[in-house]
Amino acid sequence: MPTHNNELRHQRNLHDTLLQVNHLLEKQKLVNALVRKQDTPRHELVQSLVAKQHLVELKHKLEQLHPADLAFVLESLPLDDRLKVWELIPVEKYGAILLESAEAVRDSLIANMERHQIIHVAEHLDSDEIADLMPALPKDTVFEILTQLDSQNREQVQSVMRFPEGTAGALMDFDMITVREDVNLDTVLRYLRRLGKIPHQTDQLFVVDRNSIIKGVLPLTELLIHAPDDSVHDVMRNEFISFYTDDSAHEISQAFERYDLISAPVINSHNQLVGCLGVDVVVDFIDATLQRERLNQAGLEEEEDLFAPVWKSGRNRWAWLALNLMTAFIASRIIGMFEDTIEKLVALATLMPIVASIGGNTGNQTVALVIRGLALKKINADNFLHFFFKEITISLMNGILWGSVVGVFALLLYQDIRLALVMMAAMILNLLIAALAGVFIPVGLSKCGRDPVMGSSVMLTALTDSMGFFIFLGLATIFLLPH
Amino acid sequence: MPTHNNELRHQRNLHDTLLQVNHLLEKQKLVNALVRKQDTPRHELVQSLVAKQHLVELKHKLEQLHPADLAFVLESLPLDDRLKVWELIPVEKYGAILLESAEAVRDSLIANMERHQIIHVAEHLDSDEIADLMPALPKDTVFEILTQLDSQNREQVQSVMRFPEGTAGALMDFDMITVREDVNLDTVLRYLRRLGKIPHQTDQLFVVDRNSIIKGVLPLTELLIHAPDDSVHDVMRNEFISFYTDDSAHEISQAFERYDLISAPVINSHNQLVGCLGVDVVVDFIDATLQRERLNQAGLEEEEDLFAPVWKSGRNRWAWLALNLMTAFIASRIIGMFEDTIEKLVALATLMPIVASIGGNTGNQTVALVIRGLALKKINADNFLHFFFKEITISLMNGILWGSVVGVFALLLYQDIRLALVMMAAMILNLLIAALAGVFIPVGLSKCGRDPVMGSSVMLTALTDSMGFFIFLGLATIFLLPH
Repeated sequence: MPTHNNELRHQRNLHDTLLQVNHLLEKQKLVNALVRKQDTPRHELVQSLVAKQHLVELKHKLEQLHPADLAFVLESLPLDDRLKVWELIPVEKYGAILLESAEAVRDSLIANMERHQIIHVAEHLDSDEIADLMPALPKDTVFEILTQLDSQNREQVQSVMRFPEGTAGALMDFDMITVREDVNLDTVLRYLRRLGKIPHQTDQLFVVDRNSIIKGVLPLTELLIHAPDDSVHDVMRNEFISFYTDDSAHEISQAFERYDLISAPVINSHNQLVGCLGVDVVVDFIDATLQRERLNQAGLEEEEDLFAPVWKSGRNRWAWLALNLMTAFIASRIIGMFEDTIEKLVALATLMPIVASIGGNTGNQTVALVIRGLALKKINADNFLHFFFKEITISLMNGILWGSVVGVFALLLYQDIRLALVMMAAMILNLLIAALAGVFIPVGLSKCGRDPVMGSSVMLTALTDSMGFFIFLGLATIFLLPH
Repeated sequence: MPTHNNELRHQRNLHDTLLQVNHLLEKQKLVNALVRKQDTPRHELVQSLVAKQHLVELKHKLEQLHPADLAFVLESLPLDDRLKVWELIPVEKYGAILLESAEAVRDSLIANMERHQIIHVAEHLDSDEIADLMPALPKDTVFEILTQLDSQNREQVQSVMRFPEGTAGALMDFDMITVREDVNLDTVLRYLRRLGKIPHQTDQLFVVDRNSIIKGVLPLTELLIHAPDDSVHDVMRNEFISFYTDDSAHEISQAFERYDLISAPVINSHNQLVGCLGVDVVVDFIDATLQRERLNQAGLEEEEDLFAPVWKSGRNRWAWLALNLMTAFIASRIIGMFEDTIEKLVALATLMPIVASIGGNTGNQTVALVIRGLALKKINADNFLHFFFKEITISLMNGILWGSVVGVFALLLYQDIRLALVMMAAMILNLLIAALAGVFIPVGLSKCGRDPVMGSSVMLTALTDSMGFFIFLGLATIFLLPH
């Protein structure tokens, strides 16, 4: 395999790396165990040497890894192994690793760091990175770190921390290069060479005036293709996309995706350049959203450290279960209202779950489409009715289709045409309710400024369950019982 | 608002844009209606002039929009309006719009394009873009487009089309600049100026030898900070990440995210540079995954054109509903086995849905964690057992906790301690089953090379429902009925 992508090889074979790490840890533990057993000094010496040798091997292995990969390895290890490995990693890498690793794991690592270590780590980070770590750090350490920063960095850290999470202000960093529009490209080129370092992910320089008001952007590509004696003013773009500090991460990622941006300036209400956003932030945000939704949809409040103590993981899941239990109780009480009916016609008990569950499934399909439509702003005042009636029609169509299927099912089982008709009617009605709820619950939630992704599905299922039982058993009471 | 982000303003106020477009369409329709009514030639002339005037206004509005935004507008319009607007858009923009718009909408547009239009559009696209459109185009047109391409482009198109969807080969494009390692930076700079254009999202040049075997990469930033008389060989990086044509989009997006890449070379098994990948592709891929999962989890096979005909949308949802109906039938039959028991003790009918639904909910939480663990390769042979027993313990804990809650609930309702105990026991057992299934179903699916995101949840719910009813009613039959 070509040497040039051995970094990637790590990334691909992280699994193998993990196995090796585990293997070395095991060996070393084993040897230590032996040491304890055999207490003749000579043995001990030999064994502990062997043990050391394994640690050295492990240390070497770890040194080759990219911080992101180290974060991965640490996340995949049980707490005690995790800490053992952590101590083998050179402190210079701590900062990068903490920034890369999942919150739960990050906390477990910081909890086991000496205060002076934390401060040492902070010294090697950019102010926006420090700001990212701050929430995870103990109060007093935070204070000490801030006092040790020079005024400019302290200001930056504080400004970033001031902005609410998920806004441009909180996501931005300060790795940007600014130039004036009256100089020529040659000056810029010489300036860059003098700098000797251009921040990662810089694809454009920002053109600002004396009051750091943004005038335009100078893409590196333009800088490269134009004659050195052209002036920045002639080459720079004054049609470009910028963000205000209070723009939401969602808006930002949509713009980056729509317009294929790599970086963008962040400005304040006076059009002064205050920071910049890189596509890496956006990629992380979109991916984090994907991960969070997967968990939230299952009612997990936060990502769990796979090796967190049981009670902690348990708590993470209770709120959701309690909620679902309540809805289940309600459904149960609604069935309770019809106990006499069920007693007289027990077939109802076997058929009622069908009405409820199909209602829930169709409703959730509508919810998914509405949420998507809302997220992409594709559902609006003009087409809402069109969309709404379409969903109603589909649910009617489905109701008649699946209603007849279950009707036939009921007929075959119980040779009772009236029961079959009640079953069919209940299906049609519950599917209509499912469509109504599937449209109005997410729309309502987002009208109230809540995220429809959370909660829509629970509320809908609660409704379709209860109504499913109510309609079916209600109709049965009216039409199937002798009066 | 600063002029420099009026592009962004479009993006932000796409909603308003949409309203304006709709408004103009309405006006124009209205006028045409009038024209039809009043048939005195003079009136007609006036009216049609007014109508034209609105169209001109609309046309002007559309010309200002970015292709991505035009795609958005088109997607948000009912078919007839969509086609009317489509005809007002300058043909030069067609290609970009088709590439940006959702499949369903893209098809509706292409279906209404003249063959010569399509070919004209293709002429203005890069070969990788043509390859992206090909699947959506009618066969004969594809052939004609291929014949009109020069040999190099035809080869590129065909090579891209040859690679399976979702691989580096199918995603790569050919907008890259290559240099030799023996020249010095000044030569490179002059070469770039001569080129006069550097492809969008170029952050590095690729260094290849005569046989186009890749030797290293030359980041633009390095090119800018080093002295012009340095040689490429001294400045280039030979530690960099590249992809093979058969690497999966998932691997690629993980690497881009992990290592904050902006572009990466795609090589064949001989290490020859064959194409390159940009971060924009990755952003689109991650976002597409997010959108697809939202739909799939609700059992929608594909994204629906909000304005697709009802029957078409209906079909999109049937497979899932049929599947769920089957599982519901099974659950129903399991209840059916215990009709006598229910007849004797109707309380069971009201309580049984609780056991089933809580089982489903806890199981799906486990599923979500396992799927995540698998996706990030965090669950592996070494820690599987650890993780497995943890889930079992949590489910036991939850079982006892929630089991007692529902037990008390049952006790209060029916003053029957034995019923309460049966309820509690059933909860504990069903939660254990939920944990087992929650771990083994996704693991099993991915062992069989299937995507656990699809199907895991249905299978689990089917199981927890059926078993929930079976265990609860079974225990009740054994312990609560007089023998």
